[in-house]
Amino acid sequence: MVDKDKGKPKRVRISIVGFGHVGSGVAEVVMEKRHEIMRKHGLDMRIVGIADLKGVIINEDGLSPDEIARFRAEPGGDSEGGDMSSVELIREVEHDVMVEATPTNVRTGEPGLTHILTALESGRHVVTSNKGPLALEYRRLMELARRRDRELKFEATVGGAMPLISLIQRDLAGNEVISIKGILNGTCNYILTRMARENLPYEHVLREAQEIGIAESDPSKDVEGIDTAVKLVILANTVFDMDATYRDVKVQGITDITPDALKLANDAGYAIKLIGDVDNEGRLEVAPRLVPVGDPLNVSGTLNVATIKTDLAGDVTVIGKGAGPIEAASAVLSDIIGIYACL
Amino acid sequence: MVDKDKGKPKRVRISIVGFGHVGSGVAEVVMEKRHEIMRKHGLDMRIVGIADLKGVIINEDGLSPDEIARFRAEPGGDSEGGDMSSVELIREVEHDVMVEATPTNVRTGEPGLTHILTALESGRHVVTSNKGPLALEYRRLMELARRRDRELKFEATVGGAMPLISLIQRDLAGNEVISIKGILNGTCNYILTRMARENLPYEHVLREAQEIGIAESDPSKDVEGIDTAVKLVILANTVFDMDATYRDVKVQGITDITPDALKLANDAGYAIKLIGDVDNEGRLEVAPRLVPVGDPLNVSGTLNVATIKTDLAGDVTVIGKGAGPIEAASAVLSDIIGIYACL
Repeated sequence: MVDKDKGKPKRVRISIVGFGHVGSGVAEVVMEKRHEIMRKHGLDMRIVGIADLKGVIINEDGLSPDEIARFRAEPGGDSEGGDMSSVELIREVEHDVMVEATPTNVRTGEPGLTHILTALESGRHVVTSNKGPLALEYRRLMELARRRDRELKFEATVGGAMPLISLIQRDLAGNEVISIKGILNGTCNYILTRMARENLPYEHVLREAQEIGIAESDPSKDVEGIDTAVKLVILANTVFDMDATYRDVKVQGITDITPDALKLANDAGYAIKLIGDVDNEGRLEVAPRLVPVGDPLNVSGTLNVATIKTDLAGDVTVIGKGAGPIEAASAVLSDIIGIYACL
Repeated sequence: MVDKDKGKPKRVRISIVGFGHVGSGVAEVVMEKRHEIMRKHGLDMRIVGIADLKGVIINEDGLSPDEIARFRAEPGGDSEGGDMSSVELIREVEHDVMVEATPTNVRTGEPGLTHILTALESGRHVVTSNKGPLALEYRRLMELARRRDRELKFEATVGGAMPLISLIQRDLAGNEVISIKGILNGTCNYILTRMARENLPYEHVLREAQEIGIAESDPSKDVEGIDTAVKLVILANTVFDMDATYRDVKVQGITDITPDALKLANDAGYAIKLIGDVDNEGRLEVAPRLVPVGDPLNVSGTLNVATIKTDLAGDVTVIGKGAGPIEAASAVLSDIIGIYACL
């Protein structure tokens, strides 16, 4: 409601560290939406640096779409970045927001953890899609952000394009959250949905999902519930102010579920879904659960869903696409806008 | 993420105009959550005045729960408010936020329209659950708010406790919204759900709904689609920047739907729901529609639901309780917090 037309647009200089699907999705979206974001939110977003394993590219006035396309296409780094490392980019190139989009590592959190620590120490706001650092060192990171008076935002880590953290913190502000229960992994949901519909065994559907790119060649993180557990930890720490890590979650995956079990459940009016469950009494569990067919939690295919139980608003459920580079970029973009605009 | 512990709490003086279910729900919730809100958001909320048909009560230091209970119980006004009118309360008693919770009138918008205009002119922020003024004079009200640099917020008008407007404006910031489609009236949803499940005729279920308080004695606003249309207008103006009024909506209600039609639909894998539909090409329609049984829009009972189609995030669906005094108070409270805390 604040008048965005007053004064000239605020320049927001962005670096992207990690240039896989999500990182390039963010670059694409920021480019494409430049004018719309300027008009609607008064923000002049420019990508001033990108770092990846293959090198670094920098342009302090903002990289052009051509420069970014060339960097994406080329095997080596760009001359302008020289031998700079990602940490040097974060520390030495003047910018406002560092987008951390390297792959999740739940054992060490690296290299994301070092990137985020460096960025906050250097006075950058951080928006990340990387679950590892938050699942391992949530409190340390938030305290550093607070001390440095910077924002650390991570909507993309849980539920992809499905707004969940911001929905709870802002739209349901004033509510006490009692529990959050949901399907936070699209790969598992796809496999269970298809097993149930076609009466097919787990291995068959998994192979199929791998062929069409819904499951990874090593699917263990998804099907064993690890990915869901990590997301649950982020929710636990953010919403319930816990100091949990991934090791605190009781985890069971979907690898033992049979078509027979799914059929039995269906005959009784239930679906079996891999549900992550966290509540204000410290429960942190990932396990296959019976969900009544008519329940808002019973969504199909690769969709994600979460039901937030609150004291005032009752149950609020949100459903959306949990994965995909543009979907993750949507969450990153909303986080960046949220830093600057008191919307 | 901003440190809420810095400095002393900010005092937020609130008036409540209209003291029916929603107004008293707001008072109850503000009282009950006083300390929690102070701790979490650094806001010291005080209700300094309440106005109703029966009179006005004022305490510039904040009304006590006892004073409010007495006002609620007594047939006449309190001596402290004397002969003051609601407009005088809004204009003359120093406060920060006026909560407008008088009943909706879609023909004139009154008395809400006058209350909101007066409050903005007097430099108060406004949070309202009253659909009438927004459905009739949206642009005029928003322009006045902008000119006076005040906020006018109205999450409670659409979907009750289900976050929709804030979800779109904040959590999906950066997305272009293509369409919004949803069930925005719990009474209609209850009637259609029960007709379908029990194979009962419309009149029978309506009578039943009236007996248990889900439908009003004059149910026309709900069952003829007027309430849904008004909510759609608010979404059209807010999200799509239209300048629509309730008369621009093509409206058809549920009074002609038969158990046979519901059964036929069900046999083909569909439910019939009263759907409100607004899009970026100016479509504004309320009508009974076929919804596939497995679609996230197919929710039962008195639930509300909306699917927001966006360019980046894809389809995002939110489900929640559309009515109820505490649910509406939840939305009002989040709006008030949102004015002060850049969350």
